[in-house]
Amino acid sequence: MSGRTSRYDYIREGAAIYARSFATIRAEADLSRFTSEQAQIAVRIIHACGMVDVAPFVHMSSDLVSSARAALRAGCPVLCDSEMVAHGVTRARLPADNQVLCTLRDPRVPDLAQKIGNTRSAAALDLWGPLLDGAVVAIGNAPTALFHLLEMIDAGAPRPAVIIGMPVGFVGAVESKDALAERDDLEHIIVRGRLGGSAMAAATINALASETE
Amino acid sequence: MSGRTSRYDYIREGAAIYARSFATIRAEADLSRFTSEQAQIAVRIIHACGMVDVAPFVHMSSDLVSSARAALRAGCPVLCDSEMVAHGVTRARLPADNQVLCTLRDPRVPDLAQKIGNTRSAAALDLWGPLLDGAVVAIGNAPTALFHLLEMIDAGAPRPAVIIGMPVGFVGAVESKDALAERDDLEHIIVRGRLGGSAMAAATINALASETE
Repeated sequence: MSGRTSRYDYIREGAAIYARSFATIRAEADLSRFTSEQAQIAVRIIHACGMVDVAPFVHMSSDLVSSARAALRAGCPVLCDSEMVAHGVTRARLPADNQVLCTLRDPRVPDLAQKIGNTRSAAALDLWGPLLDGAVVAIGNAPTALFHLLEMIDAGAPRPAVIIGMPVGFVGAVESKDALAERDDLEHIIVRGRLGGSAMAAATINALASETE
Repeated sequence: MSGRTSRYDYIREGAAIYARSFATIRAEADLSRFTSEQAQIAVRIIHACGMVDVAPFVHMSSDLVSSARAALRAGCPVLCDSEMVAHGVTRARLPADNQVLCTLRDPRVPDLAQKIGNTRSAAALDLWGPLLDGAVVAIGNAPTALFHLLEMIDAGAPRPAVIIGMPVGFVGAVESKDALAERDDLEHIIVRGRLGGSAMAAATINALASETE
């Protein structure tokens, strides 16, 4: 802009920033083991965390992308374990004005957690009820939530269309994601190891929601 | 709990998970260059991203912790560049029921961005007005927001108490954080390089908000 006085010189145009970011990621990251549509997902995960080195840790089941996209187009809800994941979803990318839900702050959660002997993050999932049927589920924070989701499904809960398994951290994150990866019966995407978190989980939803890069 | 049937064996108690996580971080991370109170902040940043290797990239000005804690105790607002950062703040840790604000979704933002020739993330900061005076500011997403904040201060905007500078990514993140680190006149904490993001920024707020680990 004319008339600007700033000691800083930087790109100020959102679309140009996105384009240059994605070009840098594609130049630096090894995406060779992904299909073209899988690579779109991996690129957005890398974009969210600033690390091209995360690519080798991203694993998805073979029908993850097509299953998620079909479910979203059909209007399925997006169920999240944390408010940060829910607030990271770009609503304009969702194909069917899909509901995005996090039940962690529901007032029933503390008592429910006490009753089932698990964390509030895990207990919150028990409030999803029939919405779980055919949903896109994103676990971006709590390993206990991912473990509990697998237990719920074992106990006969409705089956989601896909599970984005990206809890982060030092206790249970590795193990819960390995447990999900072993489930041939559930379409899933994980980031192996301790890495993960709400930004990667939200980026995955945003990538699955639209083919627009 | 008696009666539980699950194929998964994991820790289900929130406090135990936190304690074990922090113990693991303190055992693995090199925190030797931090003071005791600075180490508390670094531990929570590591906890948020699952990487002990982030420790060498964390830099804070010498009075960052004391300045932030004094400001928060005095009731200053917490101003965030993204909804994810705002929703990552644990309200119960804030010492004075402090306001947590993100103006990115204010309906005036798109026009303002057009007018100033910058991103919506940057333009949203122009709506903070007098709240900026003595605030804790957390930039956890957009490099343009951090650059614009420095420009606003150069142009005479009120001065925040501290700046948490943690934009993430491939275009401007490195440069904007380096620019903040060069400012002796602003108390700050950054994560150098491409790493950063809303989870680390929110974790920093949560660590500064309370000395409880």
